[in-house]
Amino acid sequence: MSKMVKVSAPATIANLGPGFDVFGLALSHPFDVVEAEKSEGGVEILEVQGVGAQGISKDSGKNSAGIAASEALRLIGAAGGVKLKIQKGVKPGGGIGSSSASAVAGAGAVNELFGGKLSAEQLIEAAARAEEKIAGTIHYDNVTPALVGGFTIVTSTKPLQFFRLDPPPMKVVVAQPALELPTALGRKVLPQEVMLKDAVANVAKASTMVAALNAGDLKLFGKCMVDSIAELARAPLIPGFFDVKWAALEAGALGAAMAGSGPSVFAILEPDGDAEAVAGAMKEAFERAGLGCETIITPPGKGFQVLRRG
Amino acid sequence: MSKMVKVSAPATIANLGPGFDVFGLALSHPFDVVEAEKSEGGVEILEVQGVGAQGISKDSGKNSAGIAASEALRLIGAAGGVKLKIQKGVKPGGGIGSSSASAVAGAGAVNELFGGKLSAEQLIEAAARAEEKIAGTIHYDNVTPALVGGFTIVTSTKPLQFFRLDPPPMKVVVAQPALELPTALGRKVLPQEVMLKDAVANVAKASTMVAALNAGDLKLFGKCMVDSIAELARAPLIPGFFDVKWAALEAGALGAAMAGSGPSVFAILEPDGDAEAVAGAMKEAFERAGLGCETIITPPGKGFQVLRRG
Repeated sequence: MSKMVKVSAPATIANLGPGFDVFGLALSHPFDVVEAEKSEGGVEILEVQGVGAQGISKDSGKNSAGIAASEALRLIGAAGGVKLKIQKGVKPGGGIGSSSASAVAGAGAVNELFGGKLSAEQLIEAAARAEEKIAGTIHYDNVTPALVGGFTIVTSTKPLQFFRLDPPPMKVVVAQPALELPTALGRKVLPQEVMLKDAVANVAKASTMVAALNAGDLKLFGKCMVDSIAELARAPLIPGFFDVKWAALEAGALGAAMAGSGPSVFAILEPDGDAEAVAGAMKEAFERAGLGCETIITPPGKGFQVLRRG
Repeated sequence: MSKMVKVSAPATIANLGPGFDVFGLALSHPFDVVEAEKSEGGVEILEVQGVGAQGISKDSGKNSAGIAASEALRLIGAAGGVKLKIQKGVKPGGGIGSSSASAVAGAGAVNELFGGKLSAEQLIEAAARAEEKIAGTIHYDNVTPALVGGFTIVTSTKPLQFFRLDPPPMKVVVAQPALELPTALGRKVLPQEVMLKDAVANVAKASTMVAALNAGDLKLFGKCMVDSIAELARAPLIPGFFDVKWAALEAGALGAAMAGSGPSVFAILEPDGDAEAVAGAMKEAFERAGLGCETIITPPGKGFQVLRRG
């Protein structure tokens, strides 16, 4: 069995319009890298480097990779612990699953070091505990694709059950404004009740997205990325949100929506679509709203990967 | 061009659990048959025969086949009318799209007689107008599969857009209690607002049903036939509802739910499943609740068919 392992877990987009708390999509990049080494016991964070590292706790009880690693050790019943080095590639607070990437990498690294006996469901539960401690509510829509890759549906949470689909080739553009929006705040503004007609609209759009994905109909998939519930409640937290979304569609995107609880907005295009034009239009729209903006262009990705064992 | 045409349109199951107002499934039988003959102008109902015919109006403005035929004539801009003979195979008030079957047959017959130029969307709209006049609200989840067959998703209503899927082989059992429940009443008991968590659960289950259908995983499809919104509100209108559902699952059904707004309950099974045992258990459960019950065992079907031209 290995003494050390180096793993990665990517950024993810949750919700994708009507699939609030249900849909997720793994990106190919950016991703977090975690190097884990066996130790006598407990979880120790040796270092946190990379994007936004200065704001991340090295206390293993407050760090998402650390919490998830502890949970995985507990589930395995391991005699021993791990020392972790975390390289952040996914910017925290941007809405594309930064803490989920670290959590999945942390849990996955422990599993690799201690025999790989945990099921995907157990690893997702371990990572989701970290999400719960950090964001205040448990949600599986980022950690699931961060682990298994592709497009995922969280079918149920008690017990956890998910369905994974291979998305057709596409380009994803993410526009990340210079605005930190804690997931907890994005949850606080949600209504507890919704109109029946809005629930029906979301069921209709979400179901069609899955059918479109299976049929390889990216145009229909994008057209159905319309949410009648969470986006409207969250939009006021993100200056320029509707303008950015509109700019993406005007520039040729097949669909655009809030990434998770925001503040990032994402758009999808055909693999040969002009992603630079869409990225530029989204960036400009955020700038018009007074926010700096970084953009990412990436295909969907494979989720958790083992990079090296030693 | 033909002077007469004989067509059929089948019973359908709407909602299928979480897909309230969205999902529909065409059955192979029972079905309504409509014979249409060109006339000088207007729509005339010559006769209505078959199951429950005595309760159906022969006034073409109050008969769903008649209303849909008028709508189709209007959409075509036809100079001329039709005389209709209606043979009811689908029992009215049972919750399996009896008026939809007649409406689709009526609109479809007119289209065949006058050159077949209407699109599926136009025919569905024509049939849905009949539903609206009769049930009080417009809904597309029965008329869509009654026309195009298979499993359908009503993606949007304004404009009407739908997605059709071929379901894998299966058996459908329908238990129809001796209880007439007007669709309008089934709508009246629905809440206008629903809990966000229930909306999320329905999106999750409905999306997974589509993924399962594509993967040919009938077991998962059946397991997800769980509704958190409409069924609970409507169950009190149907004595023995939960007992019937439970009896179906106990007898080996993969899933069971209310058919449309009820009172029928349906269950699905593998093609080699013991449908007789499930049908018997459902019938007994309705009888325990003091209701007589008829059962139907059928595969999914192809929707609207032209039987003869002359």
